Amino acid sequence: MKFSPLINELITSLKCLPGVGQKSAQRMAFQLLERNRNGAMQLSVALHNAMQHVQHCQQCRTFTEQNLCDICADGLRGESAQICVVESPQDVMAIEQTAEFKGRYFVLMGHLSPIDGIGPADIGLDLLAQQLSELQIEEVILATNPTVEGEATAHYIAQLCKQHNVNASRIAHGVPFGGELEYIDGNTLTHAFAGRKSL
Amino acid sequence: MKFSPLINELITSLKCLPGVGQKSAQRMAFQLLERNRNGAMQLSVALHNAMQHVQHCQQCRTFTEQNLCDICADGLRGESAQICVVESPQDVMAIEQTAEFKGRYFVLMGHLSPIDGIGPADIGLDLLAQQLSELQIEEVILATNPTVEGEATAHYIAQLCKQHNVNASRIAHGVPFGGELEYIDGNTLTHAFAGRKSL
Ligand SMILES: [Zn+2]
Ligand SMILES: [Zn+2]
Repeated sequence: MKFSPLINELITSLKCLPGVGQKSAQRMAFQLLERNRNGAMQLSVALHNAMQHVQHCQQCRTFTEQNLCDICADGLRGESAQICVVESPQDVMAIEQTAEFKGRYFVLMGHLSPIDGIGPADIGLDLLAQQLSELQIEEVILATNPTVEGEATAHYIAQLCKQHNVNASRIAHGVPFGGELEYIDGNTLTHAFAGRKSL
Repeated sequence: MKFSPLINELITSLKCLPGVGQKSAQRMAFQLLERNRNGAMQLSVALHNAMQHVQHCQQCRTFTEQNLCDICADGLRGESAQICVVESPQDVMAIEQTAEFKGRYFVLMGHLSPIDGIGPADIGLDLLAQQLSELQIEEVILATNPTVEGEATAHYIAQLCKQHNVNASRIAHGVPFGGELEYIDGNTLTHAFAGRKSL
């Protein structure tokens, strides 16, 4: 005995969402059917549009439906000599909320993880190297997560900067070890930026 | 500073899912964009199809894309003289998994809740009353949840059955099989004692 085919497909599809198992997917499917069909139709359209049109910013690699994201498309910021390297678009958002940093970003969309087969090219370091050699970059601020992988990635990029004679710094004090940037309060992030050290 | 418009729409739409707040919605949106665009497109289609085509079974009110659900469309079961009344399609599934019950269902899609303005007509009791008067029903088994609202709903339907000279029964409540007494709440234990049987 199963639910009807369309309901089964909906439940199965909902399980592609992170953290959603069979029971949650069932609860979601029935709640949408019973109480929020408009919301579900909007979600259907939003999923379609985002998957069809959202790509990586050609300069910083964050997600955007344009060629350049808003920050890269901003004359002053997009040509800034300071690049802040982060792991995810959510990290950009967290740093932007402090309004401390006025340069541009480079979004790795992950971190080095040899065990998962994720190497330098997979996190865009070929593009970053190209920017380091072709553009006038004065400082690369490494704001990867203070995790083992984040530290290793920061170390790798610091070496890359050295090869290109570009200063690299690491945000440091204030960010608790093992924490994830997007969940850190703005005050702590502000301190972390102010206390960055040359590598 | 915000994410790009299509990403914002996706995050906002994901929040229509029960239990999904801003942070979870962000995590879901970026995980789909980064790792599972096919899954997201399938979810988009599944949502669209389900919301467009899934309606209530004309006999038992469960969700189905056909006029009659599989159980109601089954000659023997759909014309059974036993009706089991439950609150949700998930309850039907739970009972079906025991393979104990061979009759048909009536799915309230909720329970009476005067405080929320949910009266008899909102949970289909006009349709149930019609079936009690027009069809040959011998027994209505009340399997609503053992909550205050579920009990009140069961009581209300039992009265309805009495008016139509149809037997009503309530599924037994007590200590769940495999449960340990010391972890069972007092209300359940009270029911278990009150409902004790001679051996
Ligand atoms: Zn950009
Ligand atoms: Zn049915």
